[in-house]
Amino acid sequence: MIQAIGEAARAASRRQAMADTHLKNRALEGAAAGLEAETELLLETNAGDVDEAKTQGIGGALLDRLRLTAARVEGMASGLRQVAALPDPVGEVTAGFVRPNGLRMTRFRAPLGVVAVIFEARPNVTADAAGLALKAGNAVVLRGSSYALRSNLAIGEILRRAQVEAGLEADAVQVMSDPSREAARALMQAKDWIDLLVPRGGPKLIAAIEAEATVPYVIDGAGNCHIYVDASADLDLAAEIVVNSKVSRPGVCNAAEKLLVHQSIAADFLPRVTKLLGEAGVELRGDETARSFVEELLQASTDDWSTEYLDLVMAVKVIDSVDEAISHVRQFGSGHTEAIITRDLEAADRFVRELDAAVVMVNASTRFTDGEEFGYGAEIGISTQKLHVRGPMGLEALTCERWMVQGSGQVR
Amino acid sequence: MIQAIGEAARAASRRQAMADTHLKNRALEGAAAGLEAETELLLETNAGDVDEAKTQGIGGALLDRLRLTAARVEGMASGLRQVAALPDPVGEVTAGFVRPNGLRMTRFRAPLGVVAVIFEARPNVTADAAGLALKAGNAVVLRGSSYALRSNLAIGEILRRAQVEAGLEADAVQVMSDPSREAARALMQAKDWIDLLVPRGGPKLIAAIEAEATVPYVIDGAGNCHIYVDASADLDLAAEIVVNSKVSRPGVCNAAEKLLVHQSIAADFLPRVTKLLGEAGVELRGDETARSFVEELLQASTDDWSTEYLDLVMAVKVIDSVDEAISHVRQFGSGHTEAIITRDLEAADRFVRELDAAVVMVNASTRFTDGEEFGYGAEIGISTQKLHVRGPMGLEALTCERWMVQGSGQVR
Repeated sequence: MIQAIGEAARAASRRQAMADTHLKNRALEGAAAGLEAETELLLETNAGDVDEAKTQGIGGALLDRLRLTAARVEGMASGLRQVAALPDPVGEVTAGFVRPNGLRMTRFRAPLGVVAVIFEARPNVTADAAGLALKAGNAVVLRGSSYALRSNLAIGEILRRAQVEAGLEADAVQVMSDPSREAARALMQAKDWIDLLVPRGGPKLIAAIEAEATVPYVIDGAGNCHIYVDASADLDLAAEIVVNSKVSRPGVCNAAEKLLVHQSIAADFLPRVTKLLGEAGVELRGDETARSFVEELLQASTDDWSTEYLDLVMAVKVIDSVDEAISHVRQFGSGHTEAIITRDLEAADRFVRELDAAVVMVNASTRFTDGEEFGYGAEIGISTQKLHVRGPMGLEALTCERWMVQGSGQVR
Repeated sequence: MIQAIGEAARAASRRQAMADTHLKNRALEGAAAGLEAETELLLETNAGDVDEAKTQGIGGALLDRLRLTAARVEGMASGLRQVAALPDPVGEVTAGFVRPNGLRMTRFRAPLGVVAVIFEARPNVTADAAGLALKAGNAVVLRGSSYALRSNLAIGEILRRAQVEAGLEADAVQVMSDPSREAARALMQAKDWIDLLVPRGGPKLIAAIEAEATVPYVIDGAGNCHIYVDASADLDLAAEIVVNSKVSRPGVCNAAEKLLVHQSIAADFLPRVTKLLGEAGVELRGDETARSFVEELLQASTDDWSTEYLDLVMAVKVIDSVDEAISHVRQFGSGHTEAIITRDLEAADRFVRELDAAVVMVNASTRFTDGEEFGYGAEIGISTQKLHVRGPMGLEALTCERWMVQGSGQVR
């Protein structure tokens, strides 16, 4: 099974890698039009997934993410058109120089080959991930949740048809129809066929990838994001950023989870910001000092400092110095996004330099760690690892950089 | 054991990451001077390793690589000075732009943190690898062959002393003193401490890494490098490149292993080139067609096409077209280096575009896939994987790129 998928993907990847930009764009725009034209059929198909999920006792947020609406189908279509409008990364020259012996070295972006994506019960990821992978000149193998299988296959079929209509290969898009765990494991270990695996899911999926995957992967991991409000901060600006970072979408990885406040402003700032957060429905847990300023705070436990809540919960700590803020974040941060609110140049410089996170924000909401906010048009995830790419992953993350060396007979 | 090493490395890596270039350079230059000053002691220590290796029946090339000479010590010293003279990659801005909302995004190079290197019985790698890792702002953990343990520890001690004399941390350089396989496995799985593992060794080490490592690594893999001599090639130039690629250093991964010759020039070119190769001591194995042109060729077996000989052996195949050359290399190449000798622009373009190798050479020896030849001053290996870096790995490969986002109160 995985061999047949892998061989088909590898073969199709060659055509996709060589395809001119306008052909790839034609396929993406064709797929967008196809999604719109077949909205009704997609919603019917999706209703089948939703009904079956209900009989299996699925409800709440999971069911909501599984459900397609006309607006969500339109969102997929416009996402594909946005990707079509992005510059093609393939062939971009990223370095070049001439050596003393006359050799001309040129480093340029090339497709990776075959990209696999494992994702949860959100059918729109089928179109979003495929669009990015195809535009970057790759074939893509998609493995969604079994709950969304009918929907994913239907979306995949529209993408495949658009590929053929543009003169490209249908097999550059494959949706795995086997929903078993064994099939997922086979994909994670398909070293001969998969050049990059992007897992989009929670800690359980990440743990499974780390334990079992033998293919190269990029981890889209947890975001235990901190905001440090420095002694010199503009407190109005700080309050607005803290509330936005925590409240605007608490369930995502770039939401702030921890608030560190410098002791010199705690008496002024803590009551203000906790009042605003409380009004927005945030449960607040503080360390002893924070609770001495705002007695309504719940008591934070040791676990709080390392927990990614993904919910309307925030832990608050009063700290004595930039040094303490930096060492706290170093100890508990997950390498995703850290923010400082300050007017002090040295504090900002130190925060950026000394913290090892994918993104360090100065006087901005943590929520800006996001592909669209970075101008990538779409993202296939946010890398929390150090190799290959850190932070939002757009088209570039789905390419590699290789070398051409042009000579005129040089030998060593 | 690994925890103590890891914790010490992590702590030292923070100081190293923040160190100004001139401090890092001072340490490298101090280490170079130290190696020179203690040459005699190093040679004595190394003689102990060599003697014990002999009693264990070690000889030949392995013993040669294990042996230090005054010239080799001088080579290490000058290597460290070369690395000191290279531009510091830390802080280099690799991308930057302003978003419509005024956010200023800046991507810059930062140290990875802790780099581990596992290598064979070549003590000079201790200094070479440490020099690159330290210059890129990392701490380094070195795990050489047990045969070279005394030598490696002695070289490591000189590097550690130079760190301290420059005001940096000794523990930014640690040579593992436990030569057991268990210690190597612990290093491969020290996810909390190691940010990048670079294995420098043969297929057995690579297989062990792929099977057991849970830390991030970059594979420095096999080079089954091809040279395709096109119908339009300048045959004198082609012969010189083929001989150089095969003969100048047959035991290294950038040596050519396979020769593909277009049928239209085979009658002219094959007798010439095989005569030159034969005179240089190369054993030649041909397919049926090649043997019809030069009957002295041995018969190539199916295995030959996928074998990296690392020896004075070369397999020769006559092919009908650029297409056939490309599909043969696609099937058997290892993604290291492929070369085309041609005067035909389209053939050159197709070879570069359609082959998925770290480096594609046009009219140049495969031997140029090398850190020094790329101007990197030194290399820590040659990546044959696609993620993070492809081809020669210099200082840049030992950094990551992370983001600073500067705002003035932006929220989403």
